[in-house]
Amino acid sequence: MCSGDHGRRDLESAAEGLRRLTDLLLRVTDDSGGPTAVADELDTIARMLDEQTSDETSGVRDPVSGKGNAIAPPIDMDIDDSGNVSATGLLGLAYQGPKTLVHGGMSALLLSHVLGAAGTVAGEHAVVQELSVRYHLPTPLFTPLEISASLGDPAGDHARGSIEVDGVTTVSAEARLALPPQQ
Amino acid sequence: MCSGDHGRRDLESAAEGLRRLTDLLLRVTDDSGGPTAVADELDTIARMLDEQTSDETSGVRDPVSGKGNAIAPPIDMDIDDSGNVSATGLLGLAYQGPKTLVHGGMSALLLSHVLGAAGTVAGEHAVVQELSVRYHLPTPLFTPLEISASLGDPAGDHARGSIEVDGVTTVSAEARLALPPQQ
Repeated sequence: MCSGDHGRRDLESAAEGLRRLTDLLLRVTDDSGGPTAVADELDTIARMLDEQTSDETSGVRDPVSGKGNAIAPPIDMDIDDSGNVSATGLLGLAYQGPKTLVHGGMSALLLSHVLGAAGTVAGEHAVVQELSVRYHLPTPLFTPLEISASLGDPAGDHARGSIEVDGVTTVSAEARLALPPQQ
Repeated sequence: MCSGDHGRRDLESAAEGLRRLTDLLLRVTDDSGGPTAVADELDTIARMLDEQTSDETSGVRDPVSGKGNAIAPPIDMDIDDSGNVSATGLLGLAYQGPKTLVHGGMSALLLSHVLGAAGTVAGEHAVVQELSVRYHLPTPLFTPLEISASLGDPAGDHARGSIEVDGVTTVSAEARLALPPQQ
């Protein structure tokens, strides 16, 4: 394993730690004093880390499927050669909208991402130009989700996707895609 | 100020620390060893905090406008008595899709949230049943965004919203709303 792999794994491990703290803080009991101590500790860590950063971003930084980005939901995503995208994951309290349910905007975020990924060209995800999302049933927290997307036509400028729970679609979506911007 | 206000402020301060670390980690230079040290420190903090949590969530936990939730984007949102919602914010690297631009799914997440907020009844946001998002122009990172939404008809079951940069709409959205679920 090269040092880049180590760096990536360390970054993902740190991001996982941030996700765990995000969840714990939402469940901390009042007057425990915990958050104050945490804020102080985080400030110390940030000052240490501040001296080791540059303006260049590292990889694995995407806010949906980037495991090094602590705001990315805990999902695992795969794309096959035909542009079929499948992702699985289970969302906790940090992703809650109505009580016990996934925030509707989070479902839109996830679907927008897999629809763009279905139009991947040369390693770059397509850009979504129009997105339509339909909410059929509530999507529960703490339950395995199957998120999928595929191209809807041979021209590759249209994709469809859904979120399923136990084989039942809770949210479906369609998107019109465009080529990714040139870097 | 009562102790509840203190608790809330402390929680928000800790969440702000997590957001800062999320951003720093994305810019850390390879082989600095920083992420490993951070992961270890976070693990220590998590073990301490784990003893102070319950299964009840605290307030300010919403994943979009909840300042106590570290995955919530750094925006400030207001709702007036007529259901007009306005939010302002500036998104950093953690929210990046294409280079230098806001991830399209993040725009959908933000718009879904303000559209639901436009249909607030008795303090509970409406539930979005259908969401349509149109991407007109790229939305830049590190630039003040104006996010707004309002009810589109007197019956209150339809809302429109947009994201603007310098008075120009980059993303627009419409939603069909339903009453929030009964707790």
